[in-house]
Amino acid sequence: MSLLMFVALAGYLIAYRINQSAVVGIILAGIIVGPSLLGMVTYTDFVETLAHLGAVVLLFTIGLEFNIKDIAKLPYFVIAMFGIIVPALGGFFLASLFGYEFNASVFVGTALTATSIAITANVLKEMGKLQIDAAKAIIGAAVIDDVLALLALSVSEGLVGGELSIMSLLGTAGKAIGFIVIGILIGQTVLRGLIIRLDRTQIAWKYHETIFIFAIMIAFLYALAAEAVGLSAIVGSFMAGASFGGVKLTRGQIFREGAEHLQIIFASIFFVSLGVIMDLHFVTWNVLWFVLALSAVAILTKLIGCGLPALIQRIGFRDSLIVGIGMVPRGEVAMIVALIGLGQNLIDQSTYAALILMSLLTTIIPPLILRNWVFKRE
Amino acid sequence: MSLLMFVALAGYLIAYRINQSAVVGIILAGIIVGPSLLGMVTYTDFVETLAHLGAVVLLFTIGLEFNIKDIAKLPYFVIAMFGIIVPALGGFFLASLFGYEFNASVFVGTALTATSIAITANVLKEMGKLQIDAAKAIIGAAVIDDVLALLALSVSEGLVGGELSIMSLLGTAGKAIGFIVIGILIGQTVLRGLIIRLDRTQIAWKYHETIFIFAIMIAFLYALAAEAVGLSAIVGSFMAGASFGGVKLTRGQIFREGAEHLQIIFASIFFVSLGVIMDLHFVTWNVLWFVLALSAVAILTKLIGCGLPALIQRIGFRDSLIVGIGMVPRGEVAMIVALIGLGQNLIDQSTYAALILMSLLTTIIPPLILRNWVFKRE
Repeated sequence: MSLLMFVALAGYLIAYRINQSAVVGIILAGIIVGPSLLGMVTYTDFVETLAHLGAVVLLFTIGLEFNIKDIAKLPYFVIAMFGIIVPALGGFFLASLFGYEFNASVFVGTALTATSIAITANVLKEMGKLQIDAAKAIIGAAVIDDVLALLALSVSEGLVGGELSIMSLLGTAGKAIGFIVIGILIGQTVLRGLIIRLDRTQIAWKYHETIFIFAIMIAFLYALAAEAVGLSAIVGSFMAGASFGGVKLTRGQIFREGAEHLQIIFASIFFVSLGVIMDLHFVTWNVLWFVLALSAVAILTKLIGCGLPALIQRIGFRDSLIVGIGMVPRGEVAMIVALIGLGQNLIDQSTYAALILMSLLTTIIPPLILRNWVFKRE
Repeated sequence: MSLLMFVALAGYLIAYRINQSAVVGIILAGIIVGPSLLGMVTYTDFVETLAHLGAVVLLFTIGLEFNIKDIAKLPYFVIAMFGIIVPALGGFFLASLFGYEFNASVFVGTALTATSIAITANVLKEMGKLQIDAAKAIIGAAVIDDVLALLALSVSEGLVGGELSIMSLLGTAGKAIGFIVIGILIGQTVLRGLIIRLDRTQIAWKYHETIFIFAIMIAFLYALAAEAVGLSAIVGSFMAGASFGGVKLTRGQIFREGAEHLQIIFASIFFVSLGVIMDLHFVTWNVLWFVLALSAVAILTKLIGCGLPALIQRIGFRDSLIVGIGMVPRGEVAMIVALIGLGQNLIDQSTYAALILMSLLTTIIPPLILRNWVFKRE
C-alpha cells in the first residue's frame, strides 16, 4: 500500500516534469515499477481489489457531476453505435490481414469496441472540462457503448462457439437495458428522495458520516448489480453517482468531498495498476508491428466512428474532434475482453500482450492530444 | 462492500436507537450479520484486508490529534507497566484455577495484557474528549503497553517452548524500542519538514492531492515498519499521524479531511469485522462461566493495574477511573494473541472462543460505562 502510494506520488512528479496529465504520469510510473522494468510491484489480488475499488469510486465521483437527463440523448446513441461497428470491423479485417484465424480475428475486433470512460473523464475532470457539451457526449456515448460492447462480446462468443442464438442475445440485451432503465428510475425517484430524507433525520444530525456511508453503499450496490447483469461495475457506480448529482443537502457536501478523497487514493492505485498489468517482455519485434498497426486502427476507427456521426449531427468540428479523441481509450475494458479470449484459448499470449499494449497506447495517447493540442490555446 | 456499508449504517441506527456510541452499534450489527446469527457476512480475506486498512487509517487520524511530546511521559510508562503485570498474573491464576495446564494458562495470561487503543480512542474522539489529560494518559500508556505486550508474548512463547533466552528477549525489545525512537525522531524532524516543503512546491500547488497521498504513504510505511519489528501496524500509523499532528499547511487541511473521510468508510468496516470474527456458536455453557470469570478478571485487573498507579501518581480520582476503564478494551490485539496460541496448539477451540468473547466483552463494556456513567453528567 505504501509502495503504491509512493508510485502514485512518483507519477505526479513525472506528470509535472513532462507537463502531462496526472493519469499519464501515474500509468508511466506503474510501467516503470511493474514487471516490465523494475519488477517491484506485481499485479496481485490485493492490488486488483484496491484498483477495482478505485475504478468504482472514480466513476461514482464523475457521476456526481452529471444528471442522467444530460447524457441519455439520441445523438449520443448514434455516436456510440458507430463507435462500436467501425472499430469491430476495422479490428477484424486488420487481424485477418495479419494472418489470424477467423475466431481470433473476431476477438480482436471485439476488443476494439469498448470505450473506457475512466481515463478520458478523469482527464476532462483534471482540466475542469466536465461540463462542456463534448464531455457530456463522450460520457453519454461511452455508457451506451458499454452496453453495446457487452452485446458485441456475446455475439462474438456466439459466432466463435457456433451457437449464436437470437434468444440468448436478446436476453443479454434485455438484462443490461433493464438494469439501466430500472437503475435510473430508482436513482431519480427513490434514492434522491432517500438521501434527502436521511439528511433531515436526527441520525444524520448526530452522525454526519451516515450520509457518506449511505452514498458509498449505493455506489457499490449499483456496481454489484451492473456486474450481475454482465455490464462493467463502473457503469453501475457512474449511474449511482448520477442519481445523487446536483442533490443539495442541509448537512453540506460530506458525501461529495468524502468520495473525492476516497477517489484520490484509490483511483491513483487504479492507474498504477494499469501500468503494472502490462509486461513489456511479451512484446517481441514481430508483435510490435501488429501492435502499432492495431493501435493505429483502434485510434482511427473510434475517431472516425464517433467523430463523424458527431459532426453529421451538427455537434461542431472542434467538439466532434474532442468526442472522437475522447472515445479512443480502451483501458481496462479491452484488457478484460483480452483476458476472456485468453482464458478460452481463442487468442495466444502474444496476441494477448498485443491487445493489452494497444489498450495502453490508446489510453496514453488521447490525454496527450487533448492536453497538448486541443485545449492548448486556452 | 455494499453489504459492509449497509451493516455499518445499520450499526449507526442501532447505536442511535440504544443511545450508545457508534462503535458499539456497529460491532453489534457485525455480530448480527456474522456467523453467530444470520451468517450473511463471513470473515474473508477481502474483509480482513479492508478491516486492516481501516485500523491503520483510524489510528493515523487519531495520531493527527496528538503531539508525541504529550504522550511520552514517565507516569504513563508506570501505568502501562502495571497494566501488563497485573492482568497477566490475574489471567494466569484464573486459568490455573479452572484446571488449565501451565502452558495454556500462560497464554491466557498473555492474552489479557495488551490494550486496544482503537476502541477507547474512537469513543473519546466521538465524544470530543481526545484532548483531556486522561485521554493523553490512555493513549500514551496504550502505546507503551503494545511494546510491553509484545515482550510478554515473547516471554510466554519462551516459557512454553522452554527456551527463554535473555538475548532473544533483548533483541525483541531492542528492535521495538529502536523503531519507536527512530520513528519519532524521523517523524519530528524529517517528515514534518518534508510535508511543509512539499506544501510549498509547485507540484502541490498544481496537484493538491499529492500532500494527501504523501501523508497516507507515510502512514502505511510506518505501519509496515512497525509490523516488521513485531509491533502491531496501528502503533506505526499512530506514530505517523502524531508526526503530522499540528502541522499547519498553506494549502489547507486536505490530508486531515481526507484521512478523516477514509477513516469513516474503512474504520466502519474494521468495527463490523470485530463483530463478524466472533462466532457465538463455539460458546457452550461450560465455556460461558469461564468467559464471564475471565472478562471480570480482565476488567478488574486493568482497572486496578492502570487506575491505581494513576491515582498514586496524583492523576486525580475521576481521571484515574477514566484511565482504568479506558485501558480495559483488548480488541483485536487479544484476538491476535489467541490466534497465535491456537496456531501453536497451546489452547483449544473453546479456549480460543473464550478469549475472543472476552476481548469482545471488554471492548463493548468500557464505552458503555464511559458514556453512561462517567461522562453522563456533562
